[in-house]
Formats: sequence, C-alpha cells, structure tokens
Amino acid sequence: MMPGTLPASIEYYLDEQRALIDRELDRLLPPADAHPASIHRAMRHSVLAGGKRLRPLWCLEAGRLFEGDESVLMPVACALEMIHTYSLIHDDLPALDNDDWRRGQPTCHRAFGEATAILAGDALLTLAFELLAGPLPVPPHVQLAVIRSVARAIGTRDGMIGGQVVDLETTGKSADAPALHYIHSSKTGALICAAVCCGALLARAGDEDLARLAAYGQRVGLAFQIADDLLDVLGSRDAAGKTVGKDDEQHKATYPAVYGIEESQSIACRLVAEACQELEPYGPRADRLRQIARFLIERNH
Amino acid sequence: MMPGTLPASIEYYLDEQRALIDRELDRLLPPADAHPASIHRAMRHSVLAGGKRLRPLWCLEAGRLFEGDESVLMPVACALEMIHTYSLIHDDLPALDNDDWRRGQPTCHRAFGEATAILAGDALLTLAFELLAGPLPVPPHVQLAVIRSVARAIGTRDGMIGGQVVDLETTGKSADAPALHYIHSSKTGALICAAVCCGALLARAGDEDLARLAAYGQRVGLAFQIADDLLDVLGSRDAAGKTVGKDDEQHKATYPAVYGIEESQSIACRLVAEACQELEPYGPRADRLRQIARFLIERNH
Repeated sequence: MMPGTLPASIEYYLDEQRALIDRELDRLLPPADAHPASIHRAMRHSVLAGGKRLRPLWCLEAGRLFEGDESVLMPVACALEMIHTYSLIHDDLPALDNDDWRRGQPTCHRAFGEATAILAGDALLTLAFELLAGPLPVPPHVQLAVIRSVARAIGTRDGMIGGQVVDLETTGKSADAPALHYIHSSKTGALICAAVCCGALLARAGDEDLARLAAYGQRVGLAFQIADDLLDVLGSRDAAGKTVGKDDEQHKATYPAVYGIEESQSIACRLVAEACQELEPYGPRADRLRQIARFLIERNH
Repeated sequence: MMPGTLPASIEYYLDEQRALIDRELDRLLPPADAHPASIHRAMRHSVLAGGKRLRPLWCLEAGRLFEGDESVLMPVACALEMIHTYSLIHDDLPALDNDDWRRGQPTCHRAFGEATAILAGDALLTLAFELLAGPLPVPPHVQLAVIRSVARAIGTRDGMIGGQVVDLETTGKSADAPALHYIHSSKTGALICAAVCCGALLARAGDEDLARLAAYGQRVGLAFQIADDLLDVLGSRDAAGKTVGKDDEQHKATYPAVYGIEESQSIACRLVAEACQELEPYGPRADRLRQIARFLIERNH
C-alpha cells in the first residue's frame, strides 16, 4: 500500500470503529478469570489479538444505512467476529494450515496447546449463537432469520466449512477457476455477505434493499479474499500480521496463482465497482459502505 | 447387566424410538454425495454409527408429556444428537482423549483424518443451530429460548465445554468430589438437562412444570454420567461400544475412582429416585420418563 492513497478520514473512521467494536468484544467475552480460566484466556487471546473487524463493520454499516438500532446491531456484529475468530483458530491448527502466527501473535494452539485451541474455537462458535439468540429489542422472527442466515453462511453447503474443505482438498494440486471461485466465495465470501445481510435484516430493510445489499455483500466478500491473496504475494509480514508467501509455499488455490497478479487486481477492482453500483439508490448515505469496499483494493497497491 | 431385569416393553420401546430418531437424522443430514462429499460422509459416519439416542428421546418424551407437536420436537431432538456427536468427535481427537473407537466404529479422525474430523464436528454444531432456528410451527420467542438454553448448556460456563476443559485439566491428577461434580454436571449433565427442558419449552409447559422437568433433567444427567463411569469399570467392550477401562488407564476423574463402585451405584440410584419424585404430579403419563431414568442404572448391574 502506498501511504497517502487513502483519505485520512477513512483511516480515522476505521480506527474509531475498530476501537468501538473491540470495547464491545471485550465486554461480551467471558472475563479472563472466570472458571475455567484457561479456555476464557484462550478465547480472549485470539479475539482480542487485533484484526480489522471488517465483518462487524459491514454488519453495522449495512444496518446504519437503514437506521438500525445500534444496541441490536452491535451484539450481532460481535458474534460475527467471534465466528470469524473460531474459523481462524481451527484453520491454524497443525492438522489444517499449521500456522504459528496470526494477527502478529502466536496462534491459539501455539500459545495454549492444541486441545484448548480446539475447544476455544468451539466455545467462540457456541457463544456467537448464544449472542445471536440473546434477548434483543427486535422481533423474534427477524432474529431467527439472522441465525439461519449466519448458520447457512458458515455451513458445509456453499458456506465457510464447505469452502475450507475444498481448499484443503485442492491444496498442492492445481485448482481450476471454478474450484477457486467456489473456495473463495464459500470460505470467505459467504460470511461477509451474511454480515451485510444481517445488518440490513436487523434494520428491517425491505426485500429490494436486502437483494441489493446481498449483491454488494457477495462482491465485496469475493474481492476481500482476492485482496487477501494479493497481500500474501505482495505484502510484508508486518502488514499482513501473519506468515506471508505461505499460500504459494503450500500451493494453495489463489487468484494470483490462477489469473496472475495484474488480472487478479483488475477482477477485484471490477467486483468493488459492481458492489458500489448496487448502492447507487442510497446516494451519499451509503458512502461508508463504498469506502470500506474501496479500502479492500486500495490497501494492496 | 443381567438379562431379563428390564421389562420387554422398555427395550422394545427404546429400539422403536431409536429407529424413529435414526430415520429423521438420516433425513436431516446432508446426503453423502452432496458437495463437498468428504465432510458429509464424515458427519454421517459419526452421527449414524449408532448410539442410544437418549438425548433426543429425553427431549421428545418431555415434550410428549405436555402434548407437544412431534413435528416441532423431532428436529430439535435431532439437533441435540448432532451436538452430542460433535462433542464426541472433538473429544476423541488425538489432542484430547485420543480414542480410536466409538460406538463400535473407528472414530471420525481414524476414518477420515484429523482435519476432516475437526471440520465435521464444527459442521454438526453449525447444522444443529440451523435446525434449531429453522422454520418451525412454534412461536419464534419460544424457539429463541430453546436456542439460548442449548447454547448455554454447551458453553464454557457450567456447560459442556467448561466440563471438558476441567476434565482435561484434572486428568492424571486426583480430582476431589467438588471438581468431579462440576465435570460431570457440566460435561454431560447440562446438555441432558437442556434436552429435557427444551422438550417441555417447545410443548409450552408452564413455569412450575419447567422447574420440575429441569430438576428431573439435572438428576438424570448426572446419574447418566455416573452410570457411564460404572460401565467403563464393569462393562465389556461390546456393551460400551468403545474402549473400556480407559478412564482408569488415563486417570480420569470418575465417580468409582472417588467414591468406589458401591457408593457410586447408590448415588446414581438416589439421583434417579429423586428425579422420578419430581414427576409425581403427572401420574402414569410420565411413565416413559421414569422408565428412561431407571434404564440408566439398571443397564449396569
């Protein structure tokens, strides 16, 4: 990323929102000394190690677009980050990606051992559903629709786990374009899309608006993962906060590997442009959602 | 177990109910050939390997006591069995209990590899919440109460994961009675109690009835785990369907280890008697719940 290509306002805004979300995550996670302490320390280690908090932010901003209630949006936004963190903890395990570093910190199993890491991932997923079902000032049928949408997005059929399974199965082999699209859309795209849709659902957006936000979410979800692939090739360890160049080393299916760097950048740009086009009817009210989308591609080059 | 100590009717009834639940589990799990097939095969392997299906049965019978709708009770009952199976898959992993056999079959990681087993556990937990939130002919606020109750029962604070963490931490050390009570009540008891309570909740039982069923559930939940400990000491590999004598070999915290065999049997008997006492106001309508409770202790001696 070239310094200065982003307006100061977006960086300030991202920092401010991240702080807001971090405060809430800290409040919603069990205290580090609650019995049994080891699992709570492990959960807090992984969730509070940092991260851009883009999934919660997408949920919040989609909800704010339709004047959703912050007290409803925030716990759902935090639940999404817990789910994201659970997936990172399990993906990092020796039996899966075998990663030692994440967000600039030792991964959960490196810091707490494998057994605790497996259980900490399980516990974050469980706590997320408890939060999603928690008493919230929103009609119960809306809350159930949110839970269903999240559960599908992280399941085996075109969801996060499905994407991870195909990713593991194609690692070391040469993935074709359709397999790559399946992996990225399912493994990363589906939860991001659900984050956007849940924000809109909780703010009681109408069907047409929900369809527009879903279309935005699908595109930014895929663009995000392409940008992540590019960061792995182009970035430094500091910027990524994790081991860089690892995708290539492990022969992972990535956009740069299949399409090359320039074509991947251009696909990501096109997806972000299409995503922003969906927001046209909302005018400047949707500027934050536009900025977040553009931030994805601008952070790379 | 001495053959003939149970009336034929309870064994026939358990077989019949198990077949009913198995049919529904088969229907609710993704087909073995649905993409990506490996994870679906692993999920089906572990869920359909057999098992007594006592958690779903407790949910069904608690619901039937208050004339609950089978079409509402059954998917929730199956979700509980999926959650139970997820916990078994993760507990059996090399980093945790390192078990090779379960329900007379190779454990999930032995049959499908560790990565797939971790993800199959994750996927069953996720699918369970999708089912719990699925469209059901019951008021949405009741469904949310069920989801919260299940999520708490399997979480870190006095729930299944909390119990498993303390179990792992005390393995190899000598556990005292309070630690043992915490492990068994949390690791096994909480989900069984939630199964009973969810059945009653879904059938719209009143507060006083819910309190009685919760008291029954707590007692049978703990009695169940004590009976399981006893089976590990006294049973044969055939009856348990898993490696027997393993608790002792691994120096697990068990009731027989802390209280001795006879005292453990007498504690289990007392818990079952207390559980049945809670059912007194319901007369013969609660006979099935009484029979299931007694079956726990009678299967051992």
